[in-house]
Amino acid sequence: MAEDVSRFPVVDVDGLPDDLRVRVGQIAEKSGFVPNVFRALGHRPAELRAFLDYHDAVMERDSGLSKAERELVVVATSGANSCTYCVVAHGAILRIRAKDPRIADRVAANPWTVELTERQRAVVDLALALAVDPVTFSRVDLDAARDAGLTEDEIWDIGAVTALFALSNRIAHLTALRPNDEFYLMGRLPRDQN
Amino acid sequence: MAEDVSRFPVVDVDGLPDDLRVRVGQIAEKSGFVPNVFRALGHRPAELRAFLDYHDAVMERDSGLSKAERELVVVATSGANSCTYCVVAHGAILRIRAKDPRIADRVAANPWTVELTERQRAVVDLALALAVDPVTFSRVDLDAARDAGLTEDEIWDIGAVTALFALSNRIAHLTALRPNDEFYLMGRLPRDQN
Amino acid sequence: MAEDVSRFPVVDVDGLPDDLRVRVGQIAEKSGFVPNVFRALGHRPAELRAFLDYHDAVMERDSGLSKAERELVVVATSGANSCTYCVVAHGAILRIRAKDPRIADRVAANPWTVELTERQRAVVDLALALAVDPVTFSRVDLDAARDAGLTEDEIWDIGAVTALFALSNRIAHLTALRPNDEFYLMGRLPRDQN
Amino acid sequence: MAEDVSRFPVVDVDGLPDDLRVRVGQIAEKSGFVPNVFRALGHRPAELRAFLDYHDAVMERDSGLSKAERELVVVATSGANSCTYCVVAHGAILRIRAKDPRIADRVAANPWTVELTERQRAVVDLALALAVDPVTFSRVDLDAARDAGLTEDEIWDIGAVTALFALSNRIAHLTALRPNDEFYLMGRLPRDQN
Amino acid sequence: MAEDVSRFPVVDVDGLPDDLRVRVGQIAEKSGFVPNVFRALGHRPAELRAFLDYHDAVMERDSGLSKAERELVVVATSGANSCTYCVVAHGAILRIRAKDPRIADRVAANPWTVELTERQRAVVDLALALAVDPVTFSRVDLDAARDAGLTEDEIWDIGAVTALFALSNRIAHLTALRPNDEFYLMGRLPRDQN
Amino acid sequence: MAEDVSRFPVVDVDGLPDDLRVRVGQIAEKSGFVPNVFRALGHRPAELRAFLDYHDAVMERDSGLSKAERELVVVATSGANSCTYCVVAHGAILRIRAKDPRIADRVAANPWTVELTERQRAVVDLALALAVDPVTFSRVDLDAARDAGLTEDEIWDIGAVTALFALSNRIAHLTALRPNDEFYLMGRLPRDQN
Repeated sequence: MAEDVSRFPVVDVDGLPDDLRVRVGQIAEKSGFVPNVFRALGHRPAELRAFLDYHDAVMERDSGLSKAERELVVVATSGANSCTYCVVAHGAILRIRAKDPRIADRVAANPWTVELTERQRAVVDLALALAVDPVTFSRVDLDAARDAGLTEDEIWDIGAVTALFALSNRIAHLTALRPNDEFYLMGRLPRDQN
Repeated sequence: MAEDVSRFPVVDVDGLPDDLRVRVGQIAEKSGFVPNVFRALGHRPAELRAFLDYHDAVMERDSGLSKAERELVVVATSGANSCTYCVVAHGAILRIRAKDPRIADRVAANPWTVELTERQRAVVDLALALAVDPVTFSRVDLDAARDAGLTEDEIWDIGAVTALFALSNRIAHLTALRPNDEFYLMGRLPRDQN
Repeated sequence: MAEDVSRFPVVDVDGLPDDLRVRVGQIAEKSGFVPNVFRALGHRPAELRAFLDYHDAVMERDSGLSKAERELVVVATSGANSCTYCVVAHGAILRIRAKDPRIADRVAANPWTVELTERQRAVVDLALALAVDPVTFSRVDLDAARDAGLTEDEIWDIGAVTALFALSNRIAHLTALRPNDEFYLMGRLPRDQN
Repeated sequence: MAEDVSRFPVVDVDGLPDDLRVRVGQIAEKSGFVPNVFRALGHRPAELRAFLDYHDAVMERDSGLSKAERELVVVATSGANSCTYCVVAHGAILRIRAKDPRIADRVAANPWTVELTERQRAVVDLALALAVDPVTFSRVDLDAARDAGLTEDEIWDIGAVTALFALSNRIAHLTALRPNDEFYLMGRLPRDQN
Repeated sequence: MAEDVSRFPVVDVDGLPDDLRVRVGQIAEKSGFVPNVFRALGHRPAELRAFLDYHDAVMERDSGLSKAERELVVVATSGANSCTYCVVAHGAILRIRAKDPRIADRVAANPWTVELTERQRAVVDLALALAVDPVTFSRVDLDAARDAGLTEDEIWDIGAVTALFALSNRIAHLTALRPNDEFYLMGRLPRDQN
Repeated sequence: MAEDVSRFPVVDVDGLPDDLRVRVGQIAEKSGFVPNVFRALGHRPAELRAFLDYHDAVMERDSGLSKAERELVVVATSGANSCTYCVVAHGAILRIRAKDPRIADRVAANPWTVELTERQRAVVDLALALAVDPVTFSRVDLDAARDAGLTEDEIWDIGAVTALFALSNRIAHLTALRPNDEFYLMGRLPRDQN
């Protein structure tokens, strides 16, 4: 039922403007279902369009962080923000991108101390500093990232993904956005890793 | 000097792709200067473009909250996030939009208790709950907004502006974005109110 | 490898004193594996014995809260404490006890606002108040639980489970206790619900 | 009056099962009174029994931390948790064990900065990290303890005492447990030091 | 030794300017010793003089709050601020003023939930709101105090005492001010109550 | 209107006792208006007198910190405390003393990360530690200040100013003290710098 998906009006793919119907339709075809975030943002097409553009600009970029690392930033900061939709949906994507059925639960449960590689740890530390405590974010945080070998380009990527999901988390909290049932199991079984 | 503006590469208007050069040029013409945020985001044109689109979608929308109320949300949440660029730059815009030379300093200094009209208070309370404490954001916050007479459409506006500036604040913290000198005095003198 | 399981010495079932070997052996037989918490506590048999006794006293009690509700308290408070072992291990048990493959991820991601029945909400609210903010725990918290229909006996159960896992969470944090791989998937597939 | 002692049913020594009546009786004989915690837990004999076993396992252990150091952990973490019963009751025991009439008030008032020996400071720092901020407890905390010369065995002791009193504090907060009047003055007068 | 008393220079009574030597001398005669705060502030006579004047203005005032209530505000807010000197020194005065040997330890251990009369509770709640969380102090806090029957004059007294000890606590934290040994036992024995 | 100035009774200069009328009159003559804090404190002449004495002792002292540095401490700690009156009034004075029309807005918006000289940074860091987090204020904070070259005398100045405005901020929060309109623009225009 629509009211389960969001506290605000929900739009099905067929109700979207042409460009968005095509764009969300392609995502749905690939995933096998329409992620609820698109149905919840759909009643404001201009906002959905800008969100998709921003998302593609920072999540689909070719250079810089790997796609698994971008999802790591999303799950770590969404875990720190207790954002259920983003933890469950991007947890699924992280499992698939990292080819690791357990990483998302571990990162979401405790992003601050989860055991990671040194590079992953630096990525997550920078993201958490900016996501959770922007008031005191400083050169010290940046220098720690640089000392771990992250480039300026990668650091911006971490910042940009963190910033986008600061937005995205708040939309999910505003709407009490319900994760699609499909996300919970994605990437947990051996066949998902293929 | 560019290095004063941001910790990351800065692009002048002439260095932007055509569409962005036109778009930022128009803003510069209206303001009398190029707000530094555009120069700082300019080295990632796709991100600047998506940011401008999102900004226009939630800040320039015709119905729902008034433009002064949208700026009130920006200054209150940026004040709570101690985001210097957003407080100084949008403080200037709020002074002008609200035709009040003192409101921005009062809101930024203490958004939690600043004396406002009942409607403004409800707008700011909802925005602060989502900006600062999204983890416990709940139906209670929404019901308080509804009880104060805010419509569902206005509530979404508050949420969308808050979410966008959760992103924007973090970009400003990442870059240590310097407010243009011009912002500090805008809207403070009687002639600014015309 | 043992060093992956805990930061401190680990004892296999065969290395335990007789009574504990029998007792942990029975748990292992039922689960199909030895939960790592018993191997980590095993180097201090007196503490493991007292832990098992306390656990049985509050988790296996016949009256009061249902077993699913007891696991709900564990997952909610361990989620609030970002305790990976307890979230993953007791998340599995909660899925099975509640016959719901998605409840544990939702509760762990955000115990404060997860949608629950009114009774479950009251159980979790009381547990969170005591787990996270004991300093200001007061009659107000108890009265809210009573108003939701919880009995004095059930309220004590909530308090006792919360208190035991305040202990248990800290042992897991001290040892960086690794959840057994088996827990991640338990209770997620239809056959697990039988 | 019983209702002053706890918000829940209270049991006198004579109302306890045989084994507990003997055990608590011996404590009462030594102290000169029945500490209220036993009367408050007594209505759940299995929980009181497990609590006494856990308590003896970590507080009466022969090797590792000294008994005064164990009480130091209790008073420091209970002070940080603002747990009145534990501060007053174990403050009395600390004064006696440490043969220092002023240490408990100083530790309870401000465990974070109270002046202590270097070893005591390391003990308290580790305990506070685990008691108050388990979410970010990490190898850094352990390494600081090791650098101060604490052994792995002593570190586990600190963790175990901290964990037990995380439980104990929450039982005291749940019940609003009243300290016996006798505790307030114990160990303050010269003759107490004998 | 002087260096135990404060991290900064200490002045004995004889080293004070005439007016302060007389004034502090009278206090010392009444107490039987020179409270360390006067020795620590003495190296800045103008500040000690202003402190004594402010102290007398708010603590020795004839109308409004009773003297025991003023000390209750001091101990509650100093307890919340973990200020050892103020807790120990004013805890002694509170015991004497309230003729209750246990009240200070109870208030200092947990000012938020300590059981008090309804009027005392209202006094302490208002003081804690202003001491600990001034950022969100609002009309709601004042209305709660008024609803409990406190007059405008008494409310100002609570505010003024809280404000003065916000200053005083910080001087004690700056100097690591050591409480005189005499304070620890004052007001605890029956004869002290006469 | 008086009720706009404070939640409590307000006294005009003419209503003050002789010594205060002269003293506040001189300030008014110099400023061109009567700062509202004096009208709000005036109904308790003994407290206003002690406040003025304390203020002069720490703000008008000849040696130690410069006057601009003292105002920097006031604006930084008042910004951290979200104290509107002190931010607006002392922001004006800081602009004038530092001959910098933008420093106050930058410091108040984010005292934790505002770019300052190394000496100013050390002054502000020490002040913030004591103002905001006195509970954990320690030798580490003092050593950082000393390492930056601050003398013991200057460090006391920072502590004393911070302590006085911990008091002053709370009086302003208690009274919802309204900044005089004149403060908002003072020191922002070139002629103010003369």
